[in-house]
Amino acid sequence: MPHPDLPILPSESSHLTQKFGRETANYFSGSPLNRLSFLRSDTAFLRLAYAHPRARFLLLNNLHPLVQGSDSSRLAFATHADVAPLAGADPFAKSEEEMVEGFDSREEQVVVVFLGVDEKGEVEVEQRGEGEGEFEYKGFRGPPYFAVDVTPRGKGTAAAEGLIEAVKGRGYAFHDHSPRHMGLHAGQAAMYGQARALVDWNARTPFCAQCGQPTLSVHAGTKRVCPPADKAPGVERRPCATRGTVANHSFPRTDPTVIMAIVSADGSKVLLGRNRRFPKDWYSTLAGFQEPGESIEEAVRREVWEESGVRVGRVILHSSQPWPFPASLMIGAIGQAQPDGEEIYLGHDAELEDAKWFPLDEVREALAKGVSSLGDPAPTSHVEGALRLPPPTAIANRLITAVVDGWWVSSRM
Amino acid sequence: MPHPDLPILPSESSHLTQKFGRETANYFSGSPLNRLSFLRSDTAFLRLAYAHPRARFLLLNNLHPLVQGSDSSRLAFATHADVAPLAGADPFAKSEEEMVEGFDSREEQVVVVFLGVDEKGEVEVEQRGEGEGEFEYKGFRGPPYFAVDVTPRGKGTAAAEGLIEAVKGRGYAFHDHSPRHMGLHAGQAAMYGQARALVDWNARTPFCAQCGQPTLSVHAGTKRVCPPADKAPGVERRPCATRGTVANHSFPRTDPTVIMAIVSADGSKVLLGRNRRFPKDWYSTLAGFQEPGESIEEAVRREVWEESGVRVGRVILHSSQPWPFPASLMIGAIGQAQPDGEEIYLGHDAELEDAKWFPLDEVREALAKGVSSLGDPAPTSHVEGALRLPPPTAIANRLITAVVDGWWVSSRM
Repeated sequence: MPHPDLPILPSESSHLTQKFGRETANYFSGSPLNRLSFLRSDTAFLRLAYAHPRARFLLLNNLHPLVQGSDSSRLAFATHADVAPLAGADPFAKSEEEMVEGFDSREEQVVVVFLGVDEKGEVEVEQRGEGEGEFEYKGFRGPPYFAVDVTPRGKGTAAAEGLIEAVKGRGYAFHDHSPRHMGLHAGQAAMYGQARALVDWNARTPFCAQCGQPTLSVHAGTKRVCPPADKAPGVERRPCATRGTVANHSFPRTDPTVIMAIVSADGSKVLLGRNRRFPKDWYSTLAGFQEPGESIEEAVRREVWEESGVRVGRVILHSSQPWPFPASLMIGAIGQAQPDGEEIYLGHDAELEDAKWFPLDEVREALAKGVSSLGDPAPTSHVEGALRLPPPTAIANRLITAVVDGWWVSSRM
Repeated sequence: MPHPDLPILPSESSHLTQKFGRETANYFSGSPLNRLSFLRSDTAFLRLAYAHPRARFLLLNNLHPLVQGSDSSRLAFATHADVAPLAGADPFAKSEEEMVEGFDSREEQVVVVFLGVDEKGEVEVEQRGEGEGEFEYKGFRGPPYFAVDVTPRGKGTAAAEGLIEAVKGRGYAFHDHSPRHMGLHAGQAAMYGQARALVDWNARTPFCAQCGQPTLSVHAGTKRVCPPADKAPGVERRPCATRGTVANHSFPRTDPTVIMAIVSADGSKVLLGRNRRFPKDWYSTLAGFQEPGESIEEAVRREVWEESGVRVGRVILHSSQPWPFPASLMIGAIGQAQPDGEEIYLGHDAELEDAKWFPLDEVREALAKGVSSLGDPAPTSHVEGALRLPPPTAIANRLITAVVDGWWVSSRM
């Protein structure tokens, strides 16, 4: 049974389910927004969307999102009038060319990210105001959503603090929705994930990695360019290779991460591990960063061997989960140990405190009785000393569930 | 039948094949090396490995690898004596702490990347010299492999040019193994992919994206740190947030990219597209960069809709392919169009010149008769005007093949 906090796919019950079977949608996916990425350089669109009465602004303060104070599982939003004193009444007035041409390193940019348009009106059904005409542009209809970084800093400190006080005055709050507390409703978690990843990337990456000079946020928060000149007096910009070519570090970084449930060669056990930060009896799937020049399947085999000594044969890909802490993409896989490769050895890499093979029955029991978020206490059904596992909002749980449900056996490749 | 240039998995014919079915291994995967990533900070290991007579050095000149002059499908390697004048006789003498402590921005680093150890002796079977004892460290045995950036630049220009002349004198050559000419043998392509990605990342990223100051390559070419001080006279280093925390841009960047074969709702057709750079009649699968805060499955649906107007329902992950141009990871998927979403519209994004639904029979015919590398002429079996497709070394070909073979129907999720 799907967890209530997991995204529901649009085609959940269509005939596609019969053709393809279920697609696993993980927490932080399932955004209700159409990103309309091809309109990010269309300043006419951005200006109309930003100033529209239906526009909604997701505020991030130190990366914590604004939520309904009475219900931290629901995002709260600001309006154009709220954000204008900090981000400007018309921040998209200039084209990318004009912004680059007018670059002045003395100016401090408040990053505004265009998230997308809510074509189906799913985000804010109840709060829709009276007398607000629908936003429409070139056939795309629905409230436009933006994210604004309201962390007080630099010259914008007073405006940011004023905005923060104003929204708090409405009963809203900034809530820590870190991995230890994944409590946002599904579609809203996905919107927050997108906003967090892009706001954080802009904040972490103010300089060009190629030449070391300050960069400028363009494309509605999704690109940073290295301008050739600076209006600040006495500042001579050095040449930069990114100006003549498409450079990948002009674009947001997404770090692919492998996460995998490993079954024993005979299919009777699952390999799980724990690190020192986990609560007592808590285990999860192994995981690690993808390295340059290896396939996902190879990364799974490498990480499992490095962390646990277990040698893995075939690997099949299961599903994926955006993980905006700060910029990961979790790629879930199921692998099968080689018959002579099941011995556990923790000495290669000192990452895990323990790794163990768990019989499927014990894992099934734990999925039923011992599941909770990392930051929460064990559920009352949990028996002291029994295995504890991550919640359904974690892809680790989905992978472990796929193994005990026999998904990996029925998936032929 | 597997293509001769595709990697053979170690467990190809074991009982794992029966349990799991085949795992698709794509070109640029299948490295014979064990990366031993946990030894990259072990200077004792690196020093012994680097100086060992069995050590082999893959040279990259402007990112082109050194190959056997008579056979450009096989890499050629240099020895310690060859690289010492450029990269130093003992470049791993200092620990990371000592390197950071002694950082002097006036010094130019020649990047040396530790690739791994060839435990099974697969890389250089024929060229093994007499009288060279096997390399062994803490139980890991086999020739160690490194990559060295020999592109002539700065103070190292003369040494680099000398090294290049020396290896050319042995009949070796630097060969363009770009995507238009994927002609390396499978395992060697994977080694080259790893080397290229890391050498290129070090060259593209000499500055800290957080603070704009020069960084230092450590961990045998797989990490860059932002030192707190500089021995160069008069250079005052500013504070940097990366020094107190683990920052993702200290590590190589890998850009996840989705690439997908889309089948029609009834399974009878495949959606393929072409851009202006493709030769006449040449089509391939659609593809695009993963964005922050979306799952792979969502990225597939977004990119297909943006580029072709087609709306996709379920998406299943197929396999992956490292793509070191400069740092992509291709994630292959198969998706099924929604029954009312098959209409093609190219107006959202101007990326494609054309997109079309091709009946499976036509695609099967093209796989048999019209397959070639992008840079090569059509095969003689190709009939003028018929569909042309990418070669088996491209994941696009593997995905299209999976569709016509019915893989997507038999994969239940």
